[in-house]
Amino acid sequence: MPGESASKVGWPLRHLLGFEVALVRALAEHGVAPQAGADAIARACSELELDPRSLVDSQLHNATPIPALIDAIRQGVPAEHRRWVHYGATSQDVIDTGYNLVFRDDLQRLRVALLDAAELMARTATTYRDLVVVGRTLLRRGSWTTLGFRFACWLDMCLDVVDELDIAVQSLGLQLGGSSGNLGVLGAIGVPVATSMAAELGIPWLGPWQVNRHQRYRVAFVGVLAARLVDQVAINLLLLSQEELGELTFGEGDSSSMPNKHNPASVVNARSAARIALSLGAGMFTAPPVELERSAGSWQAEPDLLTGALGHAIAAADALGNSLSGLEVSRASVAANLSDELYLSETLKVALESRFGYDEARAVMRQILDYSRSKNLPLGSAAHAVVNSDLPTEIATQSTGSLIDQTLVRFQRYRRISNG
Amino acid sequence: MPGESASKVGWPLRHLLGFEVALVRALAEHGVAPQAGADAIARACSELELDPRSLVDSQLHNATPIPALIDAIRQGVPAEHRRWVHYGATSQDVIDTGYNLVFRDDLQRLRVALLDAAELMARTATTYRDLVVVGRTLLRRGSWTTLGFRFACWLDMCLDVVDELDIAVQSLGLQLGGSSGNLGVLGAIGVPVATSMAAELGIPWLGPWQVNRHQRYRVAFVGVLAARLVDQVAINLLLLSQEELGELTFGEGDSSSMPNKHNPASVVNARSAARIALSLGAGMFTAPPVELERSAGSWQAEPDLLTGALGHAIAAADALGNSLSGLEVSRASVAANLSDELYLSETLKVALESRFGYDEARAVMRQILDYSRSKNLPLGSAAHAVVNSDLPTEIATQSTGSLIDQTLVRFQRYRRISNG
Amino acid sequence: MPGESASKVGWPLRHLLGFEVALVRALAEHGVAPQAGADAIARACSELELDPRSLVDSQLHNATPIPALIDAIRQGVPAEHRRWVHYGATSQDVIDTGYNLVFRDDLQRLRVALLDAAELMARTATTYRDLVVVGRTLLRRGSWTTLGFRFACWLDMCLDVVDELDIAVQSLGLQLGGSSGNLGVLGAIGVPVATSMAAELGIPWLGPWQVNRHQRYRVAFVGVLAARLVDQVAINLLLLSQEELGELTFGEGDSSSMPNKHNPASVVNARSAARIALSLGAGMFTAPPVELERSAGSWQAEPDLLTGALGHAIAAADALGNSLSGLEVSRASVAANLSDELYLSETLKVALESRFGYDEARAVMRQILDYSRSKNLPLGSAAHAVVNSDLPTEIATQSTGSLIDQTLVRFQRYRRISNG
Amino acid sequence: MPGESASKVGWPLRHLLGFEVALVRALAEHGVAPQAGADAIARACSELELDPRSLVDSQLHNATPIPALIDAIRQGVPAEHRRWVHYGATSQDVIDTGYNLVFRDDLQRLRVALLDAAELMARTATTYRDLVVVGRTLLRRGSWTTLGFRFACWLDMCLDVVDELDIAVQSLGLQLGGSSGNLGVLGAIGVPVATSMAAELGIPWLGPWQVNRHQRYRVAFVGVLAARLVDQVAINLLLLSQEELGELTFGEGDSSSMPNKHNPASVVNARSAARIALSLGAGMFTAPPVELERSAGSWQAEPDLLTGALGHAIAAADALGNSLSGLEVSRASVAANLSDELYLSETLKVALESRFGYDEARAVMRQILDYSRSKNLPLGSAAHAVVNSDLPTEIATQSTGSLIDQTLVRFQRYRRISNG
Repeated sequence: MPGESASKVGWPLRHLLGFEVALVRALAEHGVAPQAGADAIARACSELELDPRSLVDSQLHNATPIPALIDAIRQGVPAEHRRWVHYGATSQDVIDTGYNLVFRDDLQRLRVALLDAAELMARTATTYRDLVVVGRTLLRRGSWTTLGFRFACWLDMCLDVVDELDIAVQSLGLQLGGSSGNLGVLGAIGVPVATSMAAELGIPWLGPWQVNRHQRYRVAFVGVLAARLVDQVAINLLLLSQEELGELTFGEGDSSSMPNKHNPASVVNARSAARIALSLGAGMFTAPPVELERSAGSWQAEPDLLTGALGHAIAAADALGNSLSGLEVSRASVAANLSDELYLSETLKVALESRFGYDEARAVMRQILDYSRSKNLPLGSAAHAVVNSDLPTEIATQSTGSLIDQTLVRFQRYRRISNG
Repeated sequence: MPGESASKVGWPLRHLLGFEVALVRALAEHGVAPQAGADAIARACSELELDPRSLVDSQLHNATPIPALIDAIRQGVPAEHRRWVHYGATSQDVIDTGYNLVFRDDLQRLRVALLDAAELMARTATTYRDLVVVGRTLLRRGSWTTLGFRFACWLDMCLDVVDELDIAVQSLGLQLGGSSGNLGVLGAIGVPVATSMAAELGIPWLGPWQVNRHQRYRVAFVGVLAARLVDQVAINLLLLSQEELGELTFGEGDSSSMPNKHNPASVVNARSAARIALSLGAGMFTAPPVELERSAGSWQAEPDLLTGALGHAIAAADALGNSLSGLEVSRASVAANLSDELYLSETLKVALESRFGYDEARAVMRQILDYSRSKNLPLGSAAHAVVNSDLPTEIATQSTGSLIDQTLVRFQRYRRISNG
Repeated sequence: MPGESASKVGWPLRHLLGFEVALVRALAEHGVAPQAGADAIARACSELELDPRSLVDSQLHNATPIPALIDAIRQGVPAEHRRWVHYGATSQDVIDTGYNLVFRDDLQRLRVALLDAAELMARTATTYRDLVVVGRTLLRRGSWTTLGFRFACWLDMCLDVVDELDIAVQSLGLQLGGSSGNLGVLGAIGVPVATSMAAELGIPWLGPWQVNRHQRYRVAFVGVLAARLVDQVAINLLLLSQEELGELTFGEGDSSSMPNKHNPASVVNARSAARIALSLGAGMFTAPPVELERSAGSWQAEPDLLTGALGHAIAAADALGNSLSGLEVSRASVAANLSDELYLSETLKVALESRFGYDEARAVMRQILDYSRSKNLPLGSAAHAVVNSDLPTEIATQSTGSLIDQTLVRFQRYRRISNG
Repeated sequence: MPGESASKVGWPLRHLLGFEVALVRALAEHGVAPQAGADAIARACSELELDPRSLVDSQLHNATPIPALIDAIRQGVPAEHRRWVHYGATSQDVIDTGYNLVFRDDLQRLRVALLDAAELMARTATTYRDLVVVGRTLLRRGSWTTLGFRFACWLDMCLDVVDELDIAVQSLGLQLGGSSGNLGVLGAIGVPVATSMAAELGIPWLGPWQVNRHQRYRVAFVGVLAARLVDQVAINLLLLSQEELGELTFGEGDSSSMPNKHNPASVVNARSAARIALSLGAGMFTAPPVELERSAGSWQAEPDLLTGALGHAIAAADALGNSLSGLEVSRASVAANLSDELYLSETLKVALESRFGYDEARAVMRQILDYSRSKNLPLGSAAHAVVNSDLPTEIATQSTGSLIDQTLVRFQRYRRISNG
């Protein structure tokens, strides 16, 4: 909602300082900097008092807040250790690593929100595993499906997004390259230092990536996919809860002008947040490419685009979860919507073809349809009358049920321990 | 920059309350509500004390903050006048009108920022009206152009964006339609009430537009165009200020790792903000369409998308203005880049064709090129040597200058009075 | 549909040659080239036999087909006139102007398709001007609206798109600037030559615009808006024709697997084409900006993006027209959907507030709702029982009707003479 | 280029018929249909003569060509076997599977094109592994890097795209679900039949996915990533080949107006194709979600969007390969651009800090800079003069080289056998 934009987070100082501390500790570990220097810098970082305006000024004058941050740290460090602050690193190393730590957290929150929604999908898929409903293709009534299968398909989508999310998290690496991104200043100790830093920060070292933003496209992809998932489930819940269909209901929300109208607030909030997530995430795909060793503008937009995309994706998934938790299925409406037996058509067609052969079956089917319309009879009764014998009208959901079960088994692997 | 996202604005309470006051005043003017009711409601709005959490709750439960806002107003109004609060209106009327008032202000700020940048472009176009520079096509040196013409082209683009902006502002109308957007509840007094409200709020009444979001696409278009303008000028300033070209310089910014490096901070900030503006603005174009009388999700995302797009567009234009205000042109570099006379080639070609005819001119040109390369001579000298006579080498910029003048004259019409 | 992509059009040779002929004629008119030269070149263009592979080769080796085209023209021209072929122009002049002529034609076709659809919307709006239907907000049943009003709103949207289209057509100008886009080679005769050419080609001369692609963004905007319009109307037709709502029907299409199912083929085709139009059109907004005097890549993509966007927009509008032409309204379903009188709620609320005051009215309304639910009575009957007197239940559509009439009057101004 | 759009492919009849043959063979294998029926249908498919207009008609009337295709097949099959044509399947099963076979082929072609480009990147990275060049950050000269490292970074990006491509290929599964996508009509034999079909067609069976389009988003992601890769390398080649930098050259292309100008045609074509690929691929991410059991419009747009995205991505990668194959590095220009020793600054800073401590080093650095400017001396010489002793000026590229080697080793795993 307005005022809650995920991009208002400011700079993630904790993670930016964490980078600088991890750097100097690694330098000390590998004998480059003295341990006393590392200790002094770690202390300065933990005690840092910072005028936020200095960061804003630095952003305006340097297109990055890092110079001001480093100056502030240095002021807290004895002169003899100052040179070890930010030693061998460049602003982009700090920003890239710091935001990867932010994205790791955001993705973890998104994972929780998605799996919470998945849990509710799984419950509905289980509870209504064999509830036959009218299938709807091209927004028209088609042959039967089950409510369980519908939710199982969405659950599958949801788990596909979680899979992508897990890959994205694993690809979020430490950035360390120095000003041209080639580890040149650190020389032979570059890789050992990076390896130690990565271990300290709990993220992998996959080499420098100032030029290769692949891991960021992955994060954007997850944001886009999560938004699309939410939007798909949400619009479908809305469709099924139209009053004339009435198969699902939500009880939330009042209208400001109509006392007896209830608004599907969570679903609407979910779609709205998804829309913003998608716009910001997709913005990563159309941004200008990196110009040589560091991009002049599109790199700097990445944090806002991606924290915005993930923040809104989380809000969207949470809102979807709210909707799903209040879901009620009207078996009466489901049955009523089935009653004109349109759902029989495919089963009936197969049965008629089996009895009469393909060409004659078409003619018989036409007779049945005409009879059904002229007598205003359900298709099953019309068929019975025309063919003058019993035709199979039972729906066999076992096979569809086994597809559901596979998805539920898949979901077991994702369930968080807390859901034991 | 992070923390400065335009979407953190929260709801524009002043404008939302302004709607409610204008509504009841118009109802009183047209004899529907008593004047005392209008006065009571206006007073309640001006004295309103509101728990912000109630709006957030309302957003969560109703997908809009308006029910909570109306309840709060009603609590401040004597019982006998309560029914006139929000009479005949729906939440969307308030939100749509309120944000149009926000966009009107934002667009005005963007207009100022664009015209400030335009002023600087005009000055450069004037100062360097006839400074011949190497033209660059496909990022290759081509025939000559003038620095003035380059800036005049960008100035023209800028004024085209301002034209679109002015159209967009004029199309921002009052929303009033009631819950199905057809003015049905207000009946015959609907249009008179709307006309009075629009006059009070200083925006036009163009009929209800709950379903037709055209005016919002216009706002998005302006955001996108402004972002594209800024990005185009910014990348071109960067290209011309590459050290090897050296035709322009900026003095801003230090590198965190390299003491003698200066960063083009404003240009980079401009491009970064433009990127976000563009992503959010373009999000309006790919959003799902309005479903029947009110969209369920994409409408609700409009305020964040558009305040975000405009806010970042303003930031981008401001940053571009900063860059332009610090612009310095190196006549020495410009001259040096011209010195190998590649720029003459088109003039030379025309002169040779004029003297030798098309086919022979080609052969002569080939000789000149070979001679120029083998002797490492400038093209003009080589031509002189090969053709053994004077060839025209003067560049006539008058015609190009007159194109610049036309743009400068155009700009006179946009200049704000304060620049008079 | 596959195989019908609008981007397979190849180069518009007629328009490219038209540029070259217009150029040399203008040169002759202004005394630069001899009239015999102009005649010879015009003849060569009209008799040109061209190996298409030469254009493809030129595209591969020059990133433009124009050099091969010019060589081919020159071969058909006597040696003494060859230098006047393409004199003073650059490839981009030919391509930009040639495609503007293409876009002018495409936009005209789109205009016809949109106005054909508009005609059908206007007819429905007229026929069903006062047919009360359930309004639907957030995909929920709301207060009443009229079917006429719904179509009038879409008609208004359609006319807004046509307005933008007309502006876009008027802004499609001649390109003439020479290799750096500044008319420098032609010098003082540049503007007179351009003015004559523009008159000959029937498009305006608005100055060179190699750097300022504003007119192309306008074309893209029209493509996007047309796609959005089609998509909005199409999805709404689909929603209203869901069997349970049944307010509208289409008779097109059979299912390959279900004999009694009819597919809404035109609406689906419309949405599919709109999707492609939108993707290609929006691609113009995210393309990289022009680099200095000529962009290296994104300019070259403009013809495919925009002919694709417009071609699919035309296909979408045509398909929408097909759907609208087969539209049937079920007054029975409309009435049945109204029968539980939810639509009365807003009218009722106003009536109750008017009689009881705001606070008591809320209590009465709650009683009516409870009574309605417990007795399973329509809202109107429950109200009657609770309040024990007549309440206004008539819907006054006059005011809404007058809004429709305004749109219909607006439409009169767009109707093509052929519809007289 | 115009006329070469990848979307003009028409329907992939071979793959669509392949689906029908595989279906009936699997039905026969599992004892549902008679083997004679399978043989008859296979024969009919192989001998099928089809009026293309019937498919177009079917698309218009059914929003899919499949009904016409099935009718045509049935006409070639004896009456007693007709019912086994398309038995249990729906149009979407055929279209989804058929286009997955298309995408598999397209992705394979894209893989070849990417690895061809990668091969050239690897060669350049190997040849110029230790060639020190000026690093360029924010389009400004920065500290040193090596040309080898630059190409190794792009090679890494390229391999990341290939990794995504391989995942996308593996996720392209058979579609089989029947009209509601739940395998309901085929019942218990559904999964065995699907498994056999998938084996016959050489793609996996991963369950029905009519509702879950994840695999299609993956294809789109690959198209987008490939386009971004090409665009990034291409613009950077352009930047480095600007005449004033002159570090790289291409020899392709002539200008139509300037005889001595060569155009970077392949790079420009690459960027243009990438732009279209990106627009179409990104269109998949903003398309409306699937409505219930089958989407009404956005599904139908998938084939055009994705064949267009992949086709243009292939063209883009091929064009990039052309550029890379003609690449020449000017060691003289590289050295000249290094000569003012700006590249030393970071090395120098570290050396000075090491000798003087952080605070004093800053002061010394300022003296060196002033001296360098006032005497117009290179930084290294100025440093030598100021500090009056030797300072390290050698660049140690070993560490950067080892990063390159890692990428080259990675690439070994992707090299096609033919390059062995």
